Amino acid sequence: MMDLSNQKVGLIGNGSWATAIAKMLSKNLETFNWWVKDEYVKGYLERNKHNPNYLTGVEFKSEKLNISTDINEVVSNSDIIFLVVPSIYVADCLSKLTVSLKGKFIVTSIKGIIPDHYKLVGQYLLDKFELDENQLGVVSGPCHAEEVALERLSYLTIAANEEEKAQVIANCLECNFIKTKLSNDIHGTEFGAVLKNIYAIAAGIAHGLGYGDNFQAVLMSNAIREMNHILKTVSPVKRKINDSAYLGDLLVTGYSFFSRNRMFGNMIGKGYTVKSAILEMNMVAEGYYATKGVAIMNEEYQLKAPIINAVHKILYEGKNPAKALEKLSKKLD
Amino acid sequence: MMDLSNQKVGLIGNGSWATAIAKMLSKNLETFNWWVKDEYVKGYLERNKHNPNYLTGVEFKSEKLNISTDINEVVSNSDIIFLVVPSIYVADCLSKLTVSLKGKFIVTSIKGIIPDHYKLVGQYLLDKFELDENQLGVVSGPCHAEEVALERLSYLTIAANEEEKAQVIANCLECNFIKTKLSNDIHGTEFGAVLKNIYAIAAGIAHGLGYGDNFQAVLMSNAIREMNHILKTVSPVKRKINDSAYLGDLLVTGYSFFSRNRMFGNMIGKGYTVKSAILEMNMVAEGYYATKGVAIMNEEYQLKAPIINAVHKILYEGKNPAKALEKLSKKLD
Repeated sequence: MMDLSNQKVGLIGNGSWATAIAKMLSKNLETFNWWVKDEYVKGYLERNKHNPNYLTGVEFKSEKLNISTDINEVVSNSDIIFLVVPSIYVADCLSKLTVSLKGKFIVTSIKGIIPDHYKLVGQYLLDKFELDENQLGVVSGPCHAEEVALERLSYLTIAANEEEKAQVIANCLECNFIKTKLSNDIHGTEFGAVLKNIYAIAAGIAHGLGYGDNFQAVLMSNAIREMNHILKTVSPVKRKINDSAYLGDLLVTGYSFFSRNRMFGNMIGKGYTVKSAILEMNMVAEGYYATKGVAIMNEEYQLKAPIINAVHKILYEGKNPAKALEKLSKKLD
Repeated sequence: MMDLSNQKVGLIGNGSWATAIAKMLSKNLETFNWWVKDEYVKGYLERNKHNPNYLTGVEFKSEKLNISTDINEVVSNSDIIFLVVPSIYVADCLSKLTVSLKGKFIVTSIKGIIPDHYKLVGQYLLDKFELDENQLGVVSGPCHAEEVALERLSYLTIAANEEEKAQVIANCLECNFIKTKLSNDIHGTEFGAVLKNIYAIAAGIAHGLGYGDNFQAVLMSNAIREMNHILKTVSPVKRKINDSAYLGDLLVTGYSFFSRNRMFGNMIGKGYTVKSAILEMNMVAEGYYATKGVAIMNEEYQLKAPIINAVHKILYEGKNPAKALEKLSKKLD
């Protein structure tokens, strides 16, 4: 097994989930390299020992952190690199990369697709940097960052082609409030985490329109079947769809009132236009882009995915949410 | 197909779910026979056109209702009988029955087991009244009665050995806010509805102890796998565990703050004793008895069911909830 003490670890990202990962890393490592987006965040973290914007209650020990705004420095100095930036910033963030990724192990924990490219982050990395699939790992929930901050017991799934590598990643994250499970389904784990955001938007739309808990339960039960159908078609490996990485992750997002994707859907259901919902939220829910990308893929594979199609029609084709949901409700069972 | 207009329909029960069923029946039938427990409820319903205690906002048309407190009268005058009383009252309620059930079709919608006998209601009826299995139907959710009262779109699963009979039942219930799905899995549908109450108690205990949404998602994802394992062993027919009757029903209860079973568990998690929780709630959660019965059955079949075992240890063996959940958390993934 790889010896963790010999591995230099880097983290790229300074959002809430990246900060949660930083908390886990600092539980297990003497020190790690942490790329943040600007000098303000770097200086604030160094002075105040917590992130200025996210999970502000999580305090770090200065000696654990080697913070930098230079991605090349962080990548050069790390063997294992956790890439944890929102999918819309991935391409921009990595555009500054000049050093090689040869020999690096890249662990993504990003629940979205790269806009314009309409690719999963893993696929984007494989194509753009000519990585080998054995260089890729994926970390997935069900896991709200806020509960990690509160040290509430949470379970992560770590996927990698080689179990030994997955175990090394698990060793970086596991602690008294984090349990880990290993998997070799890197595509399914990553894709499931993307799909669940679209289903969370659907759940939000239904809630915004006044559908109740009975309908929500039926929607989620159909959603996991739809997800299974999509994953089976696109990435036909052996997996148990009711494992926490798939069903659990769907539930934690679909039932969460804090999920940005669900909130975005809720606003759409209540009558906001897509544009005004995005403006009002002052951010873009990952599921918004995912919907477009997955709809394109569904067409390519001729997949039957009525829930995603309904969300796509509402978000991208101006379909009335109430009418789209009524039509969808006839296809559910 | 059986002609609905020729079938005389009876309903036994006057709780919230029975009242929800009555609302559906009155949408589809000219008239139906309704057994209620005493003259007060009968008189109140006749005078005020709504149930005095449950779903009081649901108004009935007097001409639709043929109310009686005499179970023999209702059974004699009905071909199809919906049996919708809490499981703890079933034996007592049916003890007054002197007329034969020969030729009757009995539809149960009871999410519990018969105390002392530790039998599912269907099995109890088969044994006690020497019914043929083809005389039995089961109606299952996911369906909170309160949302039926509000006419929020809900989905029911109707199980019977013969599809034709299931369809007749569906015709009695289906309306603009109720969709139905037919199934031939009468045992699994009934048993799943019982098991989900135990998992809802587990969810409540976890919540009461301060476990968060991340854990809840993992718990539910493990619960549906455990349910599948139990149903497969006890009643090995072809079923899709992620259908709404199983997974959806689990979710609507496990995630509901209104579920009595979840509330009961929550009180246990917060430190109430079983006795004081029962006293405080002024009623017994169905899952409490189910836990005992299912634990006996699990032992008989040597089933691996860590969640149900943990709940059983807490409720019946005085095990400390925090310790039991901590131990359970190590078995989940």
